[in-house]
Amino acid sequence: MPNSIYDDLPQRPANFESLSPLSFLRRSATLYPTETSVIHGPETYTWAETYARCCRLASALAARGIGRGDTVAAMLPNTPAMFEAHFAIAMIGGVLNAINTRLDTKTISFIFGHGEARLLLTDAEFAGVVGPALSDHPLMTVVDVEDGAVPAQRLGSLTYAELLDEGDPSFDWQMPDDEWHAISLNYTSGTTGDPKGVVYHHRGAYLNAVNNAVSWGMGLHPRYLWTLPMFHCNGWCFPWTLAALAGTTICLRQVREEAIFDAIRTYKVTHFCGAPVVLNALINAPDEMKHGIDHEISVMTAGAAPPAAVIQGMEELGFDVTQVYGLTETYGPMVVSAWKHVWDDLPISERSALKSRQGIPSIMAEDLMVADPETLEPVPWDGETQGEIFMRGNITMKGYLKNQPTTDAAFAGDWFHSGDIAVRHPDGYVQIKDRSKDVIISGGENISSIEIEDVLFRHPAILEAAVVARADDKWGEHPCAFVTLKPGHELSADAVIEHCRAELARFKVPRTVVFSDLPKTSTGKVQKFVLRTRADAI
Amino acid sequence: MPNSIYDDLPQRPANFESLSPLSFLRRSATLYPTETSVIHGPETYTWAETYARCCRLASALAARGIGRGDTVAAMLPNTPAMFEAHFAIAMIGGVLNAINTRLDTKTISFIFGHGEARLLLTDAEFAGVVGPALSDHPLMTVVDVEDGAVPAQRLGSLTYAELLDEGDPSFDWQMPDDEWHAISLNYTSGTTGDPKGVVYHHRGAYLNAVNNAVSWGMGLHPRYLWTLPMFHCNGWCFPWTLAALAGTTICLRQVREEAIFDAIRTYKVTHFCGAPVVLNALINAPDEMKHGIDHEISVMTAGAAPPAAVIQGMEELGFDVTQVYGLTETYGPMVVSAWKHVWDDLPISERSALKSRQGIPSIMAEDLMVADPETLEPVPWDGETQGEIFMRGNITMKGYLKNQPTTDAAFAGDWFHSGDIAVRHPDGYVQIKDRSKDVIISGGENISSIEIEDVLFRHPAILEAAVVARADDKWGEHPCAFVTLKPGHELSADAVIEHCRAELARFKVPRTVVFSDLPKTSTGKVQKFVLRTRADAI
Repeated sequence: MPNSIYDDLPQRPANFESLSPLSFLRRSATLYPTETSVIHGPETYTWAETYARCCRLASALAARGIGRGDTVAAMLPNTPAMFEAHFAIAMIGGVLNAINTRLDTKTISFIFGHGEARLLLTDAEFAGVVGPALSDHPLMTVVDVEDGAVPAQRLGSLTYAELLDEGDPSFDWQMPDDEWHAISLNYTSGTTGDPKGVVYHHRGAYLNAVNNAVSWGMGLHPRYLWTLPMFHCNGWCFPWTLAALAGTTICLRQVREEAIFDAIRTYKVTHFCGAPVVLNALINAPDEMKHGIDHEISVMTAGAAPPAAVIQGMEELGFDVTQVYGLTETYGPMVVSAWKHVWDDLPISERSALKSRQGIPSIMAEDLMVADPETLEPVPWDGETQGEIFMRGNITMKGYLKNQPTTDAAFAGDWFHSGDIAVRHPDGYVQIKDRSKDVIISGGENISSIEIEDVLFRHPAILEAAVVARADDKWGEHPCAFVTLKPGHELSADAVIEHCRAELARFKVPRTVVFSDLPKTSTGKVQKFVLRTRADAI
Repeated sequence: MPNSIYDDLPQRPANFESLSPLSFLRRSATLYPTETSVIHGPETYTWAETYARCCRLASALAARGIGRGDTVAAMLPNTPAMFEAHFAIAMIGGVLNAINTRLDTKTISFIFGHGEARLLLTDAEFAGVVGPALSDHPLMTVVDVEDGAVPAQRLGSLTYAELLDEGDPSFDWQMPDDEWHAISLNYTSGTTGDPKGVVYHHRGAYLNAVNNAVSWGMGLHPRYLWTLPMFHCNGWCFPWTLAALAGTTICLRQVREEAIFDAIRTYKVTHFCGAPVVLNALINAPDEMKHGIDHEISVMTAGAAPPAAVIQGMEELGFDVTQVYGLTETYGPMVVSAWKHVWDDLPISERSALKSRQGIPSIMAEDLMVADPETLEPVPWDGETQGEIFMRGNITMKGYLKNQPTTDAAFAGDWFHSGDIAVRHPDGYVQIKDRSKDVIISGGENISSIEIEDVLFRHPAILEAAVVARADDKWGEHPCAFVTLKPGHELSADAVIEHCRAELARFKVPRTVVFSDLPKTSTGKVQKFVLRTRADAI
C-alpha cells in the first residue's frame, strides 16, 4: 500500500537505467564515431574503432566463460589495451583489476590469488616480475599485450591481438542490471600487511566520471595526456570521464619530462594529471624542452600535498594547477581546491599558498568532515585544530574485497575513515597536515612532516625533501629530513637546519639531515615507510 | 548467497546517499555562504541566507503537518520564494507543484484538486484567477507571497514572510531515504482533455541538474537570468543546477526586452534560457536597448524549433545560442545541439541551419531513437525518413500522477513516446519535423508546418509565423499560414504565397494566409490548437 499518491509509479525500463560509464562509451561511439579516442605513438583510434575493439574484447572474454563478478587482471602501462579494458570487462559484468606495475612478484602473486583473477592481460615490460608469479596460478589465462614500443616476451597462451580476433565487433552487450555491481578492483599499496582490495561499483564510477568533468570545468573533447597511471584508482576515473566528454586519450608509456613536453606540443594537450613529483620534474626541466607551448593547459595534481613552490613554478610555466585530494577508497579525487576569483589579484606566493590547500568536497562528493577520530565530533573551522578527514557519499568505495573486519572498521560510525590528519580553514577549505601514521610526536608535541617539507622545498638548492620520524631516546621521536639537491648545488646539513630554524618552531627543526634520492611509488608518492626504516638504521 | 565474491559488500550510510539536488544546496550554503544566490531587484540573498530561508520554510511546513508525499502548490512568478520552494518543500519530502501562471481558474482548480495540494503559495498578480478557485478547496492553506513589485492582495490566512517567521533557520532536515521519491509535479498544458501531472523524482532532478552543467559546459558561479518560467519543467531543472554550481539566480517578473537587456548589462549575466519568441523579440528590439553589452552570453533555447533566422540574429547580437529539445516528461532538455569545431568556419547561414537542428542526446540522457511509431523500428540516419522520437533513461519522468493508463501508454514498449516527428541526420543529429498532431496531411502527403514556418521567417517583413492544417474539401487539409509583420512593414497574402513558391514544393505552399498576432503560452509556444480552430472558422 503506497504511503502517498506519488508512490504508485514504479521503475520501468523506460525511466530507470543503471548508472554506468558504459553509457558514455555507447554515446561517444554513436554520436562521435570519427573523433579520435586514443593516440599511442603511431597508433590512432576513433571512438567507433575503440567501441568495436571493446565489443571484440568483451565477447571474446564471454566466449571463454568470463562473466558477471569475474575478475580480469591487467598488468599494463597506459596503452590502448588498458583504456579498452576499462570498458570491455564491464560490458560482460566482469571486474577490472588493474595492478600497480611497480609491485614485486610476491605481491603480484598475492593479488592474483586474492582477487581470483580468471584472466590476465600483461605487457612484456613486466614479464620479469609477472612470469615467476604465474606458476602459483595455473588456471589463470594469460594474454600477452604486444606493443611495438618494447621487445615481445611471451608469457601466455595467446596475444591480445589474437584475443580480439576471436571477438565480435558488434557484440550485443548489456548494461548492468544493478548499478551497485562491481566494476573494478584496486589494491592499495599499504605500508604493512597484505594489500587491501578496494572495490568500485558502476554507480560510483559513473558519478565520479561526471564529477571530474563538472568540478574541473573540462568542456567537450578534452585532449588528455596520461601521465597518471590508469592502474591508480582507474586513473582517477578519467578513462570514463573522457568517454563522457568524447575526449582523446594520449598514451605515454614513460613519464619523462621530454616526452611530456613533446606530447603537449604535438597533440595540443588540454589536460593532464600528475603527482607533485612529476610537476617538479617539469619545472626543473631544461628550458629548451619547453619551447613552442603557448596554449592553455590545466593540470590536476594530488597524491601528496604539493609544496607551494611547485604550484608557483607551474603557474610560472603557464600551466593552471588545481590540487585535488582523495584516496583509492574515494575513487581518487574527492576534494578539489576550487579557485575563487576574489583571490585573482593576490601575489603569486599567496595564490600558491591558497592552492596548496587540498580544498573543498567536489560537487558530487556528498559529505566530508574533519573530526575527532574518537568522538567523530567535527573540529572548529579555525585553520588550527587538527582532526581526521571523514567522508561519505556515492563516490566512497563499495568496500574491501573479502575483508569484512577491515571494511567495517573503515566505515565505523557511518563515515569512511581516511587516516589523514587535517585542519579546516574558516572558509571550509581542508588542509592536510599529515597522514596519521606520518605524524611525528616529539616530546609529546605533534609535528607535521608536511610543514617541515614545505620549508625545505623553499630552499633554492633543494629539489625534493621528505621528513619522517626517527626514534629519539630523549624526545621519543624527532624529525629526520631526507633531502635531494638540485644538480650542481651543494649544501651542508647545518645549512639545512639553519634554514629550518629561520622558519620553524625550534622543536620542529630536523635534528637529522640525510642527503639522498627519495624512494617513490609508481604514482610519485614518497615511500615514507622506507625512509622510516632507513632513519632508524642510521 | 552471493553470486560472486563482489556481492558481499552492501550499501551503507557511508557509501550510499540518495541522489538529490538538496545535496547541492547544502554544499553551496556550507562552502559558498557569502556568494550571492538570488537577486530580485533591491532584494539580494547569499547562499547562507537562502539556505536559512529554505530551512525556515521547510520547518514551518512540517509544523503544519506537511510531510512526505504531500503536495505544495505554487502560483508564483520567478521570485525568491519560487526559488526557495524548489528546495524547502523537498527538504521535508514534500512535492512542489509549480503551476503555469497563465492558466485559467477552471484549470487551476482542477490542478489543486488532482494534485491534492495541502498548501498554496500564491502571488498577488494572480489573485484574480486564483481567488475564485479557492472555494472548491477549503482545506488548502493559502499563503500570500508579498512582493513589493505588485500591490498586495490577500487571499489567504498568512503571508510568506509570516510563514518563514514560524520556521527554524537551523532546521535538521533529512535527505530522502529513497532517491525515487517524488520531488515535483508539473502539469502539461495538453491541448485536449485534462492536464496530466508529470512527476519528477530526486534522482532525475539531481542527474539533470548536473547534465545541464556538463552538457552546456557552464563552469562555476554562472550568473543566470530567469527569462524561462520556473514553473516550466522546474525551469528545466536550472534552480538545482545553480545550486550545484553556486551560481546566482537573477529574477525577472516580466520578460520584456528592455528588462532583459538591463539585467544582462547590470548583473553581467552569463547564461539565460528562452523560447525562440523571446530571442526574436531581443533581435528586433531597438538598438539603443542593446548598448554597453560586450561580455560573453550563452543562451539556451527550446520550446519550439527556432527558425534559422532567429539563431543567426542572436549570433549577430554576439550571443552564443545552443538549441535544446525535450518535453515536460523529460525534465525539460534532453537533446542538445552540441557544436562541432569543424563547423566553425562555415558561413553564418550554414552554421545557423546546423544549430537549428535539435541535436543529440545529452551526456546523461541515456538513450534516444527516432523510430516507426508502430513497430519501434529505428529509422535510417538519412536525414529524410521520418519517425517518432522515443527516449528512455533516468531523466524520463516517474510517470503521470493518478493516471495509470496514460502512463502505461506513454511507456509502451519500454520507451517513452514523445509524440514528436523527426528525422535523424547521418551524423546522428535529430531534427524535428513536427509534433505528430501538427503534421499537415494534404492529398495524402505529409507536410511539415515547421518547414513552411522556416521559409516564412526568412522574409524580411515577417516578424513571426505559424502554420497549421486547415480543412480542405479537395485535399483533406492544406497549410494555413498565420503571419505577424514587423512594425512599419506591409505585405499582401499573394506576396507571402509568392515567397513560399520560390522555396517550397508546390503542395506545401500555404493556400490561406492570415495576418494576425499569434496566441502563445506563457513559455512562448505558439498555441496551434487555437490557430487550428481559427483556421477552420475562416
